[in-house]
Amino acid sequence: MSKEFPRLSMIKEAAVRINPFIHRTPIFTCSTLNEMTGVTLYFKCENFQKVGAFKFRGACNTVFSLTEEEASRGVATHSSGNHAQALALAARLRGIPAYIVMPENAPTVKVAAVKGYGGIITFCEPTLEARESTLEKVVAETGATFVHPYNDFRVITGQATAALELLEEVPELDVVMAPVGGGGLLSGTALSVKYLSPATRVIGAEPAGADDAYRSWKAGYIIPSVNPKTIADGLLTSLGENTFAIIRQYVDDIVTVSEEAIIQAMRFIWERMKIIVEPSAAVPLGALLEKNNFPRGTRVGVILSGGNVDLEKLPW
Amino acid sequence: MSKEFPRLSMIKEAAVRINPFIHRTPIFTCSTLNEMTGVTLYFKCENFQKVGAFKFRGACNTVFSLTEEEASRGVATHSSGNHAQALALAARLRGIPAYIVMPENAPTVKVAAVKGYGGIITFCEPTLEARESTLEKVVAETGATFVHPYNDFRVITGQATAALELLEEVPELDVVMAPVGGGGLLSGTALSVKYLSPATRVIGAEPAGADDAYRSWKAGYIIPSVNPKTIADGLLTSLGENTFAIIRQYVDDIVTVSEEAIIQAMRFIWERMKIIVEPSAAVPLGALLEKNNFPRGTRVGVILSGGNVDLEKLPW
Repeated sequence: MSKEFPRLSMIKEAAVRINPFIHRTPIFTCSTLNEMTGVTLYFKCENFQKVGAFKFRGACNTVFSLTEEEASRGVATHSSGNHAQALALAARLRGIPAYIVMPENAPTVKVAAVKGYGGIITFCEPTLEARESTLEKVVAETGATFVHPYNDFRVITGQATAALELLEEVPELDVVMAPVGGGGLLSGTALSVKYLSPATRVIGAEPAGADDAYRSWKAGYIIPSVNPKTIADGLLTSLGENTFAIIRQYVDDIVTVSEEAIIQAMRFIWERMKIIVEPSAAVPLGALLEKNNFPRGTRVGVILSGGNVDLEKLPW
Repeated sequence: MSKEFPRLSMIKEAAVRINPFIHRTPIFTCSTLNEMTGVTLYFKCENFQKVGAFKFRGACNTVFSLTEEEASRGVATHSSGNHAQALALAARLRGIPAYIVMPENAPTVKVAAVKGYGGIITFCEPTLEARESTLEKVVAETGATFVHPYNDFRVITGQATAALELLEEVPELDVVMAPVGGGGLLSGTALSVKYLSPATRVIGAEPAGADDAYRSWKAGYIIPSVNPKTIADGLLTSLGENTFAIIRQYVDDIVTVSEEAIIQAMRFIWERMKIIVEPSAAVPLGALLEKNNFPRGTRVGVILSGGNVDLEKLPW
């Protein structure tokens, strides 16, 4: 496998490209959580990112990387989650159409959010086949550029800018942790960390009930996610070959986390830090609470991936 | 009435005094809320303050204003809320005892929080008389300095530092809003704003179900709070003569807010800004959502007073 991974210069170009549009999110610390874990934590708050998740970085980088001619035909994806909203907003900011294929049983609140950002929705049956065939049709009709939620180097390069900002502000980290689902955030994070601070360890955190990335990483080939069960609904998907290639090369470890630890970590973040994160974002802290074997005082960066959560359905 | 109000120099001294101990809290903006309200909002995030509320500023200023001799005998108060925790932590930081009188039916979580900060608790019957007589006894026995939750110029001066920081970072505000209960935050806010930016209007926001400050301000004398009913449980108390004197002189308006608007505002802050605020902190935004009559583009500072909320009992 000889992938041409995105280079550091490309990540830096992406940062400049998306800078006018994204929030430069703050880095929070919490003395109570430091005391509790014995390590020094630096939380990169992508829950404060536009659209409420890091996904906006990748969508924005991709949309603003397109040529004028490509851009004029718009972008397309199938998603009912944060990527759909992120792509719709990025497209609106460039003034181009975003075609979003969504299953007809998608929650109304998510449909409304995509519409709110100006996305043009095509509904389909709630199967992967229907989503893919509907998307193909939309792309064929419009000439729009398909933007995969994670298995695209432009997207990965965009996600990498979160860790780039983290390391700019906190350069001496021993470890950087990120959750892993499809691997867009983790692979981007790994690229930035290994380019800028090769001795810093990169650790992915994954729900035990959706541990396909852990098993793929151990096995050396992609094992798809089958019937995943976890509250961390942003981490259900399988790795892509691009994200996996980067993760295999640059990620030092992947750890799995129980549902109890994820919920406990989410609650700690809400109660102690007074910020709202979604379950997926709490997975790295859950790993720390559950199986912390870092020496005291280890400096750990954590990407809090997002804050989109249904306030009517809290897990406690 | 010729009160000697705290001067600007005293507020600046307080800021220097408490600076090593407090968090300099960030100021957040939210484009969605700006679009929704038509004004430009600057939120001073005291929900991120130590102990989760602005109260730590006043407690800290008072504790570190004491002479060595006064300090050696400790501080005392009766409270089951944020002030008790704030005073206990401030005292611990100075290395002196904090005697806290709490009703025997206080929620275990609040008792545990005060104990966690090293407070020495004396329980009493859950009546105002019992609280006051028990406190008198504790003070007589220990020689501790009583620190009132709000009707004390040292406390008011400490609370004033939040608006001082806000104006340092965002000097050109047309309006500054704060919630009003006992009036410590509103009076301190009014002092800082009128000293530094006399043309800026200061507006208190109060739940309609606990509108004693509104009525007092209209009447020109203190009308006590009787059977207040509101979800904003930090705003149940009556004004004190010191807070009222400042509010009468320096506050431009007090507006009342319905419970529905408070809950709606709290939810908007959680969903859009991804931060946790308690109901009391959402009252000013509730007023804006309910009866916004500011011209478009008015620059409004809002003190988000705190973020201590029971995650098991959310109002939606």
